[in-house]
Amino acid sequence: MATATNEYPTKAYGTSAPDSPVGPMDITRRGLREDDVLIDITHCGICHSDLHTARNDWGRTTYPVVPGHEIVGTIAAIGENVTRHEVGDRVAIGCMVDSCMECRHCDQDLEQYCVNGMVGTYNGKDLRDGTPTFGGYSERIVCREEFVLKVPDAMPMAEAAPLLCAGITTYSPLRTWKIGPGSKVAVAGLGGLGHMGVKLAAAMGAEVTVLSRSESKREDAEKLGAHAFLNTSDKDAMKAKAGYFDMVLNTIPVRHDITPYLHLLKIDGVQVLVGVIDMLPEMHSGILLGRKVLTGSGIGGLAETQEMLDFCAEHDVLPEIEIIRMQEVNDAYDRMEKSDVKYRFVIDMGSLKET
Amino acid sequence: MATATNEYPTKAYGTSAPDSPVGPMDITRRGLREDDVLIDITHCGICHSDLHTARNDWGRTTYPVVPGHEIVGTIAAIGENVTRHEVGDRVAIGCMVDSCMECRHCDQDLEQYCVNGMVGTYNGKDLRDGTPTFGGYSERIVCREEFVLKVPDAMPMAEAAPLLCAGITTYSPLRTWKIGPGSKVAVAGLGGLGHMGVKLAAAMGAEVTVLSRSESKREDAEKLGAHAFLNTSDKDAMKAKAGYFDMVLNTIPVRHDITPYLHLLKIDGVQVLVGVIDMLPEMHSGILLGRKVLTGSGIGGLAETQEMLDFCAEHDVLPEIEIIRMQEVNDAYDRMEKSDVKYRFVIDMGSLKET
Repeated sequence: MATATNEYPTKAYGTSAPDSPVGPMDITRRGLREDDVLIDITHCGICHSDLHTARNDWGRTTYPVVPGHEIVGTIAAIGENVTRHEVGDRVAIGCMVDSCMECRHCDQDLEQYCVNGMVGTYNGKDLRDGTPTFGGYSERIVCREEFVLKVPDAMPMAEAAPLLCAGITTYSPLRTWKIGPGSKVAVAGLGGLGHMGVKLAAAMGAEVTVLSRSESKREDAEKLGAHAFLNTSDKDAMKAKAGYFDMVLNTIPVRHDITPYLHLLKIDGVQVLVGVIDMLPEMHSGILLGRKVLTGSGIGGLAETQEMLDFCAEHDVLPEIEIIRMQEVNDAYDRMEKSDVKYRFVIDMGSLKET
Repeated sequence: MATATNEYPTKAYGTSAPDSPVGPMDITRRGLREDDVLIDITHCGICHSDLHTARNDWGRTTYPVVPGHEIVGTIAAIGENVTRHEVGDRVAIGCMVDSCMECRHCDQDLEQYCVNGMVGTYNGKDLRDGTPTFGGYSERIVCREEFVLKVPDAMPMAEAAPLLCAGITTYSPLRTWKIGPGSKVAVAGLGGLGHMGVKLAAAMGAEVTVLSRSESKREDAEKLGAHAFLNTSDKDAMKAKAGYFDMVLNTIPVRHDITPYLHLLKIDGVQVLVGVIDMLPEMHSGILLGRKVLTGSGIGGLAETQEMLDFCAEHDVLPEIEIIRMQEVNDAYDRMEKSDVKYRFVIDMGSLKET
């Protein structure tokens, strides 16, 4: 192991162009600053954002890019002033690796909305030296200690990984809008985010309904712990549930008409968008006048992410995952695009040693 | 005065076709049911809905129609079981004259969202005999006693009228979203609704900013009690107030892009649409992901409307009005379309006797 002041040559998987597959890449992790920890990555989940960033679908990618922001591993070394972590600790990193920690949002434990801009785990820029950040498709990562969460003892590492993005993204709005026993929650979109939404809302005591156009999801919904299934292409069934739900957790990742979901809400009920990053089609404002609420939510702050991990450990909430080798990542991307995964791919980073 | 079982021939102003001006019309008010009161109307405010309904802009008008749902007057007779009102009481009727009073929404004092459909003060259908409802552009009206509010003693009748629609429409969301001392509220659109929004939010202790594209509104904003003015066409000024407001109360009555107002909101801040009844243009969902909230609100329930009247009396909040004669209503409509009124027309119903 290198000393704290030395850099770490690191095997990774990344890409240098939108049309190139993700492949082996050598990167360098910075030598430890006094508040940094070095993490040996054991697993990294695959998020849709990885795919979109690798392919520059959002036009914001700076190449080369190393995706991955659902990272778990163990502490391999610590900087001289680190107090939160010790070598050997089981830890995790989510979608951000730094923020200013002193603006009004950081002060409220909302680092994801840092006024000065949070630093993405990949495709970001280090606040101190401006170097690009590289994500979790790699052997190891160096990160400021505050942005490193604890993986609870009871929790398996591979399953922990998707909690860092898919988990917190669905947990945070459920908490913000005070979902609990007696709440009626509908989850639209049954992918990586949606399946966590079902499990988390059920664990919070809510009555959970899965919304889908396809009857094929009915059985899956039940297996995940949903109490009901509502086929959104069945007009009578949709009408029967008009005004029924406290929340529609909308995890659908593509442009779509959100109005039918607004009709399902009670007065003061809320539709939270967590998946779509696209233009919403025109909608008639009349539906909102019935005190239907539309909002969105992005991941969660550090404290809330730790709270989520602890909640999942306590309530035995874990994602359904398919473990793959690093070398299979491009196939995994293709399968994700066809929704051919139940429900999250997780890369066993041990496989990277074979590259 | 006719007896309780007799009908009341009544002078009114209405129209029988979308392209006809509003003019004199003879209507009949029903004889008093046991829970009805008869009201001699002294004043009626003019709402944009009157104009839109008279001209069938929303495609929902059944002719003939008598507009007017900002009604004040005095009780002239009461049905045999009426307990809430006495002859001579100063009273008011807003946008609805009945509802089922037994559904889950009526049970929550949200009669405006009656599951079985509230009965509009005009262009509605009586729940018991299916006859059309006619509004306040008339000498008198008969109404179920529960839907008749008390005008507080201290309040002038003419000024009370606009509170029944413009007042409650802006009061209700301010209450729902707990605006009070320390809140920062922006009001978009400085018409009948907007000017009440400014006064009410200020009376609740909020810091109030008027949003407008036009510098010409700056002085008016100040006169109404706003603490600040923000020119929405000044990009730098808009940027400086990004993330500043707890609420944008959007009273703009026409289709427009609501995204700039979302940028003005704090995390968990809310934009409430109360004016626009139209399609909203496409919007990017990304802005919502910063936990910006979009909703709408329609008038208020009976209890809340009474609360609003009492609040306005206590805090001396009254609309700015221009009193007109019934015969001037078509000119008033034309002027409203040019926003040439500060800020609400109120018809002196005494003028109807001259017809």
